[in-house]
Parts: sequence; structure tokens; C-alpha cells
Amino acid sequence: MKLYDGGKAPNPRRVRIFLAEKGLEVPLEPVDMSALGHKSELISSRNPLQRLPVLELDDGTIISESVAICRYFEELHPEPALMGVNALDKANVEMWQRRMEFNLLLLVANVFRHAHPAMAEWEVPQIKEFSDSNKPKVLATLAWMNDELKDKEFIAGERFTIADITAMIAVDFLKPARLEVPEEHTHVLDWHKRMKARPSANA
Amino acid sequence: MKLYDGGKAPNPRRVRIFLAEKGLEVPLEPVDMSALGHKSELISSRNPLQRLPVLELDDGTIISESVAICRYFEELHPEPALMGVNALDKANVEMWQRRMEFNLLLLVANVFRHAHPAMAEWEVPQIKEFSDSNKPKVLATLAWMNDELKDKEFIAGERFTIADITAMIAVDFLKPARLEVPEEHTHVLDWHKRMKARPSANA
Repeated sequence: MKLYDGGKAPNPRRVRIFLAEKGLEVPLEPVDMSALGHKSELISSRNPLQRLPVLELDDGTIISESVAICRYFEELHPEPALMGVNALDKANVEMWQRRMEFNLLLLVANVFRHAHPAMAEWEVPQIKEFSDSNKPKVLATLAWMNDELKDKEFIAGERFTIADITAMIAVDFLKPARLEVPEEHTHVLDWHKRMKARPSANA
Repeated sequence: MKLYDGGKAPNPRRVRIFLAEKGLEVPLEPVDMSALGHKSELISSRNPLQRLPVLELDDGTIISESVAICRYFEELHPEPALMGVNALDKANVEMWQRRMEFNLLLLVANVFRHAHPAMAEWEVPQIKEFSDSNKPKVLATLAWMNDELKDKEFIAGERFTIADITAMIAVDFLKPARLEVPEEHTHVLDWHKRMKARPSANA
């Protein structure tokens, strides 16, 4: 199998961090997104949505969508569990993963894609007003996360999960979006430091 | 347990259809979203994101996020499988569910929320240009789906899954968004008819 990888963009990182936490090595096939490699025939023929990463199995089967790729490896290699261990835990992890995805990662991406000059060819039309309108929503999520992280070591509770990965790549994505975690949100900042201290953060 | 329900909005429908396909009955607690019941103390104290539906277990445990609620019931009641039966199948279903969510449901919601007068208090600010810019993206997804559905009975392949549910509620949501499936997309229209013919469609 091989993983068509997209470098430092959030979703390719998300899958590489997941694999590192599982202790799995999958051959990477680098694709240069800055040269629009995700729109090449190589990738388009495998994922018509022209998004990365894309996993290709030895028989040619394709799995795209980061979380679907993670699900595949979670099912094949359940330990350490990054998506929950029983019905209630799996539901809880999925709840937090989706909360971080829709209320943080997606909103930060909206801020970035609709304002950053480097995205002018990617997001057509760029709508500056839409970028701006997402900023207070990002800040509201960070304030809520700060409250939630008062008594929790990890986003979904007592164990490191995919929800931490999604939240970490979203917080790392604040910088290119020209946002930051307000310094009074010490619980978010401490949690983020703990996440960055894990070897997987460099994957 | 009880399910705080939000009537005809897409996400509450998504969970009710899932339960109907599983043959499960969960006591519903209706919440009037048109009277902003999802912003009430009753719901806010259970889900700070003020979104419906919300599942409350007998011990007070809360699960929000539609797909997380579905995951809970899928794990407790695996048959009929609506989220896949083995590692590859689960990944494939998740891929299609996410494709339908991010490339159809979310985009239709963007068109609706940023233009419909009834949403003026919900989506602040409403950005008409953003609504408009999502319309061609919705149409592009429908054209791609039409191609995909040429040789498939269901969105994810041979079996009815949660990906069909997400796609169906998204297609049903076209009407309030003042869009429709172009009549040349006969494979989408036929698939939609098959979905609407299932008893669960009225859940």
C-alpha cells in the first residue's frame, strides 16, 4: 500500500500523526500541493475530489478522506485505541472529533482560505467578509475548549484520541490564518504544549 | 434514554432515519427549533453548542453530534450494518458519508443559511455572496454523484448505509435552499426515488 501525502497541510498531517501514534509505517508518496499536485491526473484519477491524503491498497482500492483512512487503520490495528474502546467511548470520541472538526478546524480553514493571498487560486471567489465572520466563532470555540480542558488531560477525556489530533492540527493552523490562542486560555495552551511534546507531533 | 429531537431539520431527521433503519425506538423529546428551543437552558446545559439532536442516557451521559449518536447505536446494535462490516468496508462507508457531508450537505446548508430570510437571526452575518458561491459547488457534486450512481444502487456501493441517509437529507434540503437536482441527472433522481420509497424516509 502507499499513502499519497500532501506535506504540511492539516489533513495530510492528521493521518501521519495518527499512524505515528499507532506505531505504523506506511510508504509515503509525496505530492507537492504548492505546485497543485493534488489536481494532477495521478491524484484526480484516484480521488475525483482532488484532495489529499489518498490511501491506495495493493489491489488498487482507494480510500480518501483523512478520518476514513484513520478508521481503516484503527480497525486493522485496534491498539492503542485512538477512536474509542466500546460503544459509549466510541460515540464520545466521535462527538469530540466532530466538534473539533466543525467548530474549530473548519472555521480556521474558512478564515485562512478566504483571506490568505496564497489561497487566491484555490478558493474562488475569496470572500473577505466570510473570513472575518469566522474569526469570532474560532475565538468562541477556543474559550469553550479552555473551559472544557480545566479538568481534562485530553479533548475527549482521559485518553489521547483522534479528537486531540484534529484539535492540534487546527490550533497549529491558527498561525497561517493569522490568529492565535488568547494568552488567558491557559488550559488550551497547556494542553497544546502537551500535544506538541509527543513524538507524533513531528510526523 | 431519550433523544432531544429537532423536527424536520436535516440532522434530527438523519438520526431518526438511522434509528428507523435499525428498527429501534427511542423516546423522543420534541424541541421547537423555530421557537429557538435549541438555545434554551434545557438544551444549552446538555450541549453547549446548542445543536440538536442530543441523546441523553439514563445516567445523564450526553452524546451530541448526529453521527456520534448513530455510532453509539451501530455499536450496540450492529445489524443491519449501516456503517460497514469490516475494516475496508467501514473505511469505505466513512469515506462516502464524509464526502456527502462536506461536499453536499454542508454546501447546501451554506446556500440556505446565508440567504434564506428565516435564517437571518441564526446566521449572523448572512453573506449573500457566500451563499451564491456555494451553488455551483453543489451542482458540481450532483454531477459527480450522477456519474458515480450509474453503476451503483447505493452511495457507498451494494448496501444501504449512513452515506445514503446523509445524501438523502442533503438532497431533500435542496428545496428550502431553492435549488434542485437538474433533470438530466437521472441516476441521482432514480436513487433519490428509491431512498424516498423506504419506510424510514418518513421517520
